Amino acid sequence: MWRDLLPIGRNAATGGYRRFAWTGADADCRAWFREQAERRGLTYELDRNGNQWAWLGDPAGDDAVVTGSHLDSVPDGGAFDGPLGVVSSFAALDELRARGARPNRPLAVVNFGDEEGARFGLACVGSRLTAGQLTVDKAHALRDADGITLPQAMERAGYDPDAIGPDPERLARIGAFVELHVEQGRALADTPHPVGVASAIWPHGRWRFDFHGEANHAGTTRIEDRRDPMLTYANTVLAARKKARLAGALATFGKVSVEPNGVNAIASLVRGWLDSRAADEETLAEVVAAVEQAAVERGKRDGVDVRITRESFTPVVEFAHGLRDELAKMLGGAPVLPTGAGHDAGILSGTVPTAMLFVRNPTGVSHSPAETAAEDDCTAGVTALADVLEGLACR
Amino acid sequence: MWRDLLPIGRNAATGGYRRFAWTGADADCRAWFREQAERRGLTYELDRNGNQWAWLGDPAGDDAVVTGSHLDSVPDGGAFDGPLGVVSSFAALDELRARGARPNRPLAVVNFGDEEGARFGLACVGSRLTAGQLTVDKAHALRDADGITLPQAMERAGYDPDAIGPDPERLARIGAFVELHVEQGRALADTPHPVGVASAIWPHGRWRFDFHGEANHAGTTRIEDRRDPMLTYANTVLAARKKARLAGALATFGKVSVEPNGVNAIASLVRGWLDSRAADEETLAEVVAAVEQAAVERGKRDGVDVRITRESFTPVVEFAHGLRDELAKMLGGAPVLPTGAGHDAGILSGTVPTAMLFVRNPTGVSHSPAETAAEDDCTAGVTALADVLEGLACR
Repeated sequence: MWRDLLPIGRNAATGGYRRFAWTGADADCRAWFREQAERRGLTYELDRNGNQWAWLGDPAGDDAVVTGSHLDSVPDGGAFDGPLGVVSSFAALDELRARGARPNRPLAVVNFGDEEGARFGLACVGSRLTAGQLTVDKAHALRDADGITLPQAMERAGYDPDAIGPDPERLARIGAFVELHVEQGRALADTPHPVGVASAIWPHGRWRFDFHGEANHAGTTRIEDRRDPMLTYANTVLAARKKARLAGALATFGKVSVEPNGVNAIASLVRGWLDSRAADEETLAEVVAAVEQAAVERGKRDGVDVRITRESFTPVVEFAHGLRDELAKMLGGAPVLPTGAGHDAGILSGTVPTAMLFVRNPTGVSHSPAETAAEDDCTAGVTALADVLEGLACR
Repeated sequence: MWRDLLPIGRNAATGGYRRFAWTGADADCRAWFREQAERRGLTYELDRNGNQWAWLGDPAGDDAVVTGSHLDSVPDGGAFDGPLGVVSSFAALDELRARGARPNRPLAVVNFGDEEGARFGLACVGSRLTAGQLTVDKAHALRDADGITLPQAMERAGYDPDAIGPDPERLARIGAFVELHVEQGRALADTPHPVGVASAIWPHGRWRFDFHGEANHAGTTRIEDRRDPMLTYANTVLAARKKARLAGALATFGKVSVEPNGVNAIASLVRGWLDSRAADEETLAEVVAAVEQAAVERGKRDGVDVRITRESFTPVVEFAHGLRDELAKMLGGAPVLPTGAGHDAGILSGTVPTAMLFVRNPTGVSHSPAETAAEDDCTAGVTALADVLEGLACR
């Protein structure tokens, strides 16, 4: 099962995955999901927002227990982020059968579409639409780097973009959602626990910094005549790291675009995207405000105009305490830990009792071809997920 | 004549020009050149390296006086850099005729191909090939951002890439080359002189800095676990400015590329290109060495591996003193000034007695849509060039 998925969307040069929403690699992943469902005699379903479901029991029944994750990736992502949760979900159903467990609630595996937002710049589009956290108008206006809109991309992939929208009836039938995910950090790495339970997702957001200077010849323009936005950008990158470090938060510039981006031309415009996260919203706001202030102050010195746009913001997510404690108990006192990463589970947690399991990551590396997890730990993850599903749905 | 050229390759959004070698816009510029030649009854010639020539007198004659410049542009370049020299050359021939001057040496206007190097990353390809400063093998290996090689691009434009190579016989027939160019700085701006004479071109070069870190999740990787090359890049950008300022030199990072360039991914690789120039080669070497050292030192702190490649280097060019002084005298004591920008004249100066005229630039801005020159100053440039051609070829 795991092996069939491995070659899909893999970039031979980097070893990383490029499984972007509504592309050919995405279609291959979706075909794999459907095949896994049908092979097990599960009821396959594609919902109005392009999320895939595989039901054991009645899809229309109430109080369902749902598990799953996503199959898409960031650019040059690893093999585990997303797929480990979906593969472990099918494997956990297999283990339940092997145990002879008899579910008295409907059980489902889900693959949420476009979780990473690698193509259209917004994460968790499938779950956001379902939960009504993204309006149809905004979704229809999303564009990829080539100018292709989300509706165009969906149509080309054979889906109806006019069908998308909130799906409250579907969510109302879910009694619990559990997402298993590879840990994206090293909190479990130095413990004897292969599996942990999530407590919360840090609040996080993306801010676009536009640094407007003046294009000019790099070989002839005197230092004092320059308005070079690359300097303001560079200073802001360093300021962001410093402010985050002092606050115990995170702040990263990982994406930049430059105009005209010529070796012998002083840039006219540098755009940098700040990703920032912290344990609480107040700290996050303080860090971002400090970075903004540093950018504007340096901009004045450089003759550079700085404009800042908040492109997205996700408040803190506290997972349902009852479910969280129940899971930790079922797993014999598994550690409870927060994460800085957003997940579909975070989106659903506003509507549905939601929990997450994390599988130990020895290096902590994720969103990279070097992302990994030990085979034993992955197996322990499947067992833990099966224990949880059995505990929730078979008693 | 000037008006016909203005719409070619103009980007409506920026007002800047995108006349890249061997593109449609370049072909339109070349058609314009040929038409200007034919309209004046000049002998049109395309040389083996794709440079265009328009001859008054015998193209095979000796001791020719040649003037001209280039028609291609940087991305979003201005209207004057290059075209002003070509247009002024034709206009100066018109003025010689109007004066009734009778040349006793062959006269030619030249349009050198691919001066800016905007597409293939190497400047002055047409003149370098002609002067034997670029080997055919290296030229054939040049690639644009889409992976199209120079020979492929030439073929698509209807030129024979196998014909390219050194053309010493052609250069041996040239007794003097004079290139008129808009000034790319403000040295003339505060003087009463609309036209100046070049003394030298600063030595300059391009260095590629590859900062190798480790891709990771921007939302989950602890500050102390990061190897973020964006930080090393940012620090190097600021160091370059500081070292250059202290040395009275220039150092610019105007181009950057990032992998994977995702908002929520710590970069694995940041590539930045340093353009640096100074009045003498020793100072330039000192500045670049200081920037390299700053990059490597900061890289150690960030866990980032820094690799530096010199992509091009052009030694100092001292224009022929005799010709330079003769021109300054012909122009009634025009100011003599150096420039930081490379030119075809700099390439030819090793083989042919070469000079340059600069036309005043009120803002100093170049390589930008805001590049400009007053109409009166452009007219003064034509008169000055006609004076020089008359002085050299009609006595």
